[in-house]
Formats: sequence, structure tokens, C-alpha cells
Amino acid sequence: MIYPIFLCLFLTLFESSIFKMSEGDRLSRESPPNFVVIFMDDLGWGDLSSYGHPTIHTPHLDRMSREGQKWTNFYTACSVCSPSRGALLTGRYPIRIGLGPTTGGSRVFFPDSKGGLPPEEVTIAEVLKERGYKTGIVGKWHLGHLPQFLPTRQGFDSYYGIPYSNDMDHTQGWNLENLLGEPDITKWNVPLLENDTVIERPANQHTITKRYTEKAIEFIRENRDDPFFLYLPHTMVHTPLFASEDFLNTSSRGFYGDVMAEVDWSVGKILSTLKENDLDENTLVVFTSDNGPWLIMQEDGGSAGLLKDGKGTTWEGGMRVPGIFYMPGTVRPGIRTDLGSTLDLLPTFASMAGVSLQENLVLDGFDLSAVLKNGTASPRDHFIYYRNRDIYAVRKNNFKAHFVTATCYQLDNNRIEHEQPLLFDVDNDPGERFDRSKDLPEVVAELTRLADDHKRIMVAKPSELDKR
Amino acid sequence: MIYPIFLCLFLTLFESSIFKMSEGDRLSRESPPNFVVIFMDDLGWGDLSSYGHPTIHTPHLDRMSREGQKWTNFYTACSVCSPSRGALLTGRYPIRIGLGPTTGGSRVFFPDSKGGLPPEEVTIAEVLKERGYKTGIVGKWHLGHLPQFLPTRQGFDSYYGIPYSNDMDHTQGWNLENLLGEPDITKWNVPLLENDTVIERPANQHTITKRYTEKAIEFIRENRDDPFFLYLPHTMVHTPLFASEDFLNTSSRGFYGDVMAEVDWSVGKILSTLKENDLDENTLVVFTSDNGPWLIMQEDGGSAGLLKDGKGTTWEGGMRVPGIFYMPGTVRPGIRTDLGSTLDLLPTFASMAGVSLQENLVLDGFDLSAVLKNGTASPRDHFIYYRNRDIYAVRKNNFKAHFVTATCYQLDNNRIEHEQPLLFDVDNDPGERFDRSKDLPEVVAELTRLADDHKRIMVAKPSELDKR
Repeated sequence: MIYPIFLCLFLTLFESSIFKMSEGDRLSRESPPNFVVIFMDDLGWGDLSSYGHPTIHTPHLDRMSREGQKWTNFYTACSVCSPSRGALLTGRYPIRIGLGPTTGGSRVFFPDSKGGLPPEEVTIAEVLKERGYKTGIVGKWHLGHLPQFLPTRQGFDSYYGIPYSNDMDHTQGWNLENLLGEPDITKWNVPLLENDTVIERPANQHTITKRYTEKAIEFIRENRDDPFFLYLPHTMVHTPLFASEDFLNTSSRGFYGDVMAEVDWSVGKILSTLKENDLDENTLVVFTSDNGPWLIMQEDGGSAGLLKDGKGTTWEGGMRVPGIFYMPGTVRPGIRTDLGSTLDLLPTFASMAGVSLQENLVLDGFDLSAVLKNGTASPRDHFIYYRNRDIYAVRKNNFKAHFVTATCYQLDNNRIEHEQPLLFDVDNDPGERFDRSKDLPEVVAELTRLADDHKRIMVAKPSELDKR
Repeated sequence: MIYPIFLCLFLTLFESSIFKMSEGDRLSRESPPNFVVIFMDDLGWGDLSSYGHPTIHTPHLDRMSREGQKWTNFYTACSVCSPSRGALLTGRYPIRIGLGPTTGGSRVFFPDSKGGLPPEEVTIAEVLKERGYKTGIVGKWHLGHLPQFLPTRQGFDSYYGIPYSNDMDHTQGWNLENLLGEPDITKWNVPLLENDTVIERPANQHTITKRYTEKAIEFIRENRDDPFFLYLPHTMVHTPLFASEDFLNTSSRGFYGDVMAEVDWSVGKILSTLKENDLDENTLVVFTSDNGPWLIMQEDGGSAGLLKDGKGTTWEGGMRVPGIFYMPGTVRPGIRTDLGSTLDLLPTFASMAGVSLQENLVLDGFDLSAVLKNGTASPRDHFIYYRNRDIYAVRKNNFKAHFVTATCYQLDNNRIEHEQPLLFDVDNDPGERFDRSKDLPEVVAELTRLADDHKRIMVAKPSELDKR
């Protein structure tokens, strides 16, 4: 079997060219569609009411799910922050873009890191700029905080947000007592940047979701006459949690529910701003998360629902995340159980915007635009679960083989190499409870070959995460 | 604190009388509303797509959830079959109606049982007959199969279904191999009854959901000019699973998903029959389950989603079940996180039908009609988790105290008496992961008092389940 990354590139180009010729297609009008990506931090697969949470109240996201497409088998490309974000923006697995750390190194960027997303990597913002898009990021970057790595060097016209996670600069120590205690901005010293300049330190996180929302609305209004790409990676719901006063003590899910209520309010504001500016039918809004819930954060951490484990692992709870696509009149409403990934956003957006990608750009993503528009089957039939530079698991259709497992957040802790890979039918058994490897050795063999083929053609970059 | 069962009765009567005087109320018209209760067997809290299952496809139930009320804190009165069914039909805890077995006895009726729901117990069917309702049951009874205990002796005009669980009469032994193997009716010898007569043995379970649906439709059509109560306790999704040919191999959730697809189809047929007969706006349809998923049944068992454990236990997964109320134009759509229970159906229906209950009838249920119609807060603020004759746990508002826990299906197996009760905030922590008892001793004390008060005034009946 040939591993289809090149095929994918081919298809992307092919579909793009068809697309340009299709005069009747609403997306080929003079004005290409806008894109808004709302990207959560540590939000679990089970943390929206439309994904089954009993007490988290998310009416705006539920409406997006109902009137758009709710994907139930949607994956982030990594179970931790920086690599996941790099992969979303480039459509390439972290190991390909310098975000696959060597064992023993950091898995994400820290305030003392010297690396970042390599400047030569092509982001969604850079792809869309070729077609004249205005591009903005409001929120957490986490792909290198030194000047040469900031968003403005990666295709974004403007930046407003924090450069890394909200728990990374701490004044009183990194421990659960500070992380879960009374929210207090003086315990943290994370800077807030506008473009390349620090404008506030510590960032006042109590109002951060509200201010991100205001900035996002401002961006939409200012760019209403141009095609635009707004990337909105929220600082929440990463611990330490913060919510503005209006939302405190409003949810029976506790503080986490309060924070999600504010995020849902923010989603509602984005959607109503699009509508008020007559942009709703020409804007694809995507909502997803960078990885699963941070389970060690107790009630301040989220839930993966019926999925196993959470952030940092290659169990489903670590990498399967909410995936909602909304564009009234274009996205065909429904629940999609096909495979999809944050890796697919770049080729999908390129296709919908009618941008031809560079011929030598190797992508790991697939163009999902036909699924979104026509409800046809997803072109993605497999997914590779990386941890650092290793393939821990592979999914093809309904089957997932685990070659290596780990069960908690610490690097290489509880790492088990499985001489006989574990095999789960994750559609029938989403909780990964019943190992089928003994009954189905031929499936294990097929998935092992898929991983081997993938490894053989993977061109990995040295790790930027190891630079200190 | 006074335990409010008498208060509840009082309120029920009070609301009934108000209700009769309210001329403008649609429910006080000449024709009182019809009631349809679709009661699943062993369906877990997490087994509908509207409750978050990733691959079970339930479009009709999702529509009911969306256009009606979806309750996320809805409880069955017992974690196993017979007591749960008796409680739903009478609005009384199992221990009150002879369905609380002594320790070491059977928890449900078996083919050699000599007992049943005591004839003097008043069922929903009997309550509604006073107002001239036509009453029918299509499905599994499981409240005594000897002639004196059959549904026709408990207020039902007609009966079509099996008398106990579909795994109880077995020709080749009760073991997982037979339960989970290729579906084969000859392995089982469960009879199918029409009224008091066995008409088929073994019941052909391949077509049982289809035939129940046909009978239910027939009942609705025949009674379209009278008020009616249709009780539809499905035989599925209790193992051994069966589905008709049209639904085999249709679901990526495997056989369980196929079976649920047929159940959802059945729900769709009921709803469309109501609509075709112009009854949809005058019929309250309720969908719920008798207990949580039977986890030992592997992939043939369901899922409680993010809730802990399943059938047979007093953890949330054992007793919290889907609860959907649908009546276009009357039930105010929304997600309800209030407490509700199958115990509440009898007083709710009585109130909506304008029936005064007997003054000496002690109920454990609350009238939910105002919640359904107006979206006001639920009158239920607590719930008692019985297992056999003992109170294992108590919930009041968001807190739940466990006095005794057990973690599996076997009677008194893994039974732990907690000298210091466990305490969970089950709204904030629905997975019951973080014991709060040490931080909140006053809440533990309050819940312990609630249990003690309840015990003091509980008038228990001898167990019918012990009769052999």
C-alpha cells in the first residue's frame, strides 16, 4: 500500500482546479469565503452539551453543531499544545515541521525556549494571503515567542494575545495549589502582546476571553469588505482558569462551566457579528480543540466523555476533540462519523478559497470541502497518532492499533511498548476497552504496515523544541 | 427537615385542582392528553447521539431531544429491571411496592418466581382509566408472569409482549458465549403473550422490535378518538441482542448500533403515526430506560458516557438514564439539568390528565408538568438510590453521598460500607472522581439526615421477589 500523502496533495490540486472552473459554485464567486477558526486549549471531547456533557451549557455551540456539521471522529495532530498548533496551521504532522521533540526534551515551548515554528513552514495565513486575505490572530500563539517566530512572521497581519500557555510564567511556583486555587493574576506573569510588543504583564486573565472577543469582533468589522482569516486560539480552558465577573458562579459545572459559558458567549458574539455584517453565509466557522482534557487538574480539568484518558496521551481522550463546521447555506448540516483532523484545515481552506498550493509542499491533510458542502464521504481513511518522534498508534477506518501506550501527562512516564500491538474497533468500542488483536491478526498486520510505510517516507525536521 | 413525600402528594392534588379551574390551559380541554412511554431495557445514559455517543445514530430521538426537553439528570428508581418497572408504573420506590428484595434474594423476577407487583398497587394505567383512558402495553412486563400478576390485572386493556427478560429462558445455558454469539432464537425459550395467552414460544426476537412497533401503531390508530396511555417497554437493548434484517450491519457501533437504529426507526414510526392521526400536539411522548448499561456484555452492552459504572450499581452510570419529553406546542424545548425520575411520571400524567389521586396513596414522585410546560424549576430536589432494601446513596441538589457502594452486577458483591460516606458534587464532577467528604462534613451530615428521615417514615412491603 502506498501511503497517500502525495496522493492527497494531488487531489488537493486537482480539486482546486475543478473548483475554479465550476461557475455555478457559490464558493467560486468573486469574493472567496472567510475563515474563522476558534481553537480551544485543553477542551475535552465531552465538554460541550452537544457532545453529551450533562451540565456544561453551550447553546451557541449547540446551534453551530445542529445547523452545521458536528464531527465525532475529529482528531488533533498532537496531544499537547505547541505541536498541535503548528500542525493545524501548516497541515503537516509535528515531526515534519520541527515540533517532534526527541525523547527527554520538552514537548512544548517554554519561556526559556529558543526555538519556534521554522519560518520556512507555510501557514494557513500565508496560503490565504496569496489570494489577498486579511489575516489576524487573537489568542495564544505558542509556536515560539522570540521575535523571529512571532505570528507576524508567519503570515498574520495582526496579533493580539499571549505567546505561550497561561501557567508558564509563575511568580509563586507551579503547583496544583496555585493552579486550582482562587484565580489571581499576580501568581502568573504571562505577557500580553499586540503585534510584536508586550502591552501588559501579567496579562489580566480575568478579562482575557472578553478582550479576545472584542478584538475578534473589531477584526471582522474592519475587514468586512475583504476576504479574511481569523484565527482565535483561546487561552481558556487551560488551567489556571479565569472568567470575567459576569460569568462567575453561573454554572453547575463549577468554575470550568463558568469559563465555558463565557467561551460559548464569545462564540455567540462572533456568529452575531458575522450575521450583522452580512458575512454569515460567506464565512466558514470552525470550532475545535488543541488536545484532550488535562485530567490531573481535577474539577478544573475537562472531560473526554466516554473516551479513554486525556491530554498528553494517544488514547482517544488525548487526541479526539470536538470538531464543528458552520456555514449556513454551504455546510450541509449533519453528524459526521467520518475521520477528520485539524491537519485537514489548510487543504480544505485552500480548496474553498481557490488557492493553488506550491507543488513541492508535502501535506498530511485532506481536502474536506466536498464533505462539508455535499455530505460525501471523507477522503481521510486513516490517522497517525504521534507522540514526540514516534508513532504510538494508527487508525484506519474503524480500527486502531496501539504500538506504544502511555497513560499520563509526564514525558515517557508509564510508557509501554507492546510487542503484540493492542487493537480496538474504536467505532464500536470508543472507550478502547476490548482488545481485538488476537481475533484479528490480519488487521494488526495491515495497520503495522501502514505505520511502517508512513515512517519510511516521513522526512522529519530536527526538533525546535530541544533548543534552549 | 421533613421528607416531602406527603408534601408531594399534597402538591399533586393542589396542582390538579388548580389545573381543572384553568380554562385557558390547552390541557384542560375536553380531550385530555395521550401518553406514550417508550421504555428501553439496559440502554445507557450515553447511548444516544443527543447524549453524546459518537457512532450510534438516533435521528428521531435527537429530534425529540431538540424539539422537546432533554433531561440530563434523570433517574430510574432502581438499577435493575423489575423494581425499576414497578416504580415507573406506580410512582413509588420499589421497597414500598414489594420489589425490594432481602439480601441474598433475587433482585428481579425469574421464570420460577411466584411473586409479582401486588395487585393492590395502583399503576399509571389504573389511574388514567378513571378518566376513561384506553390503556395498552406492548413489550416486556417483568412484574410477575403468573396469571394474577399479568398487565391485564393492573389496568391495561391489552398486552402484547414477553413476560420477563429475553435471556431468562435458555435452552443451551446462560453464558457469555450464548449471549454474545450469533443471534439465534433457538437458544432462548422466552414466550410471547397476547393478553393472557402465550401465542409464540420461543418468541421470534429477530422481528420483535418491528412487531412491537406495528402493534403500537395499531393501538394508536384504534384509539385515536379516545384518550390513551401506551406503555412501550422494548425488549431491546437487553442481551441477547436481535435486530431485523433491514437493520443488520448498518451501524459502525456494531450490533448494538444496529439494534438502536431499529429502536430509533420505531420511535420515528410512533411519532409519524401520531402526526398522521393529528394526535402529535395532544400526546406527551416520554423516552427513558430502566437502568444503566450492562457492562459485562462487552460490545453488546451499552455505555453510560462519562458516568461511572453501570447496571446493578448505585453509581451514576447505574441509575442516571436518558429522559426525553416531547409534545409539540406544550413541552417547552430545552435542556433540563434539574432532577427528575421515572417515579415522577405517574403524578405528572395524573396532573396533566386532571385526575385526582386517592388521598391515602403515598407517592415518591413529583409532578413535573410545570417544568414541561413552563420551564420552571423542577419540584424534585433530591433522589434516594436504593439497592434491595437499603439506601446506598442520596442526592440532594448537586451533592450525592454514598453510604454503601458496589461495583458490579452480582448481588452484594464488592459491597463496601463506608463509615465515612463518600461525597461527590455530581453536577461539577459527574464522573464521581473527587471525594469531597472531608472538605464538606456539613453536607455529608445533611444528606445522612435526609436518608435517616426517609428510612423512618418508609413503610416497606415484604419482598415479592423472594417468593419461589
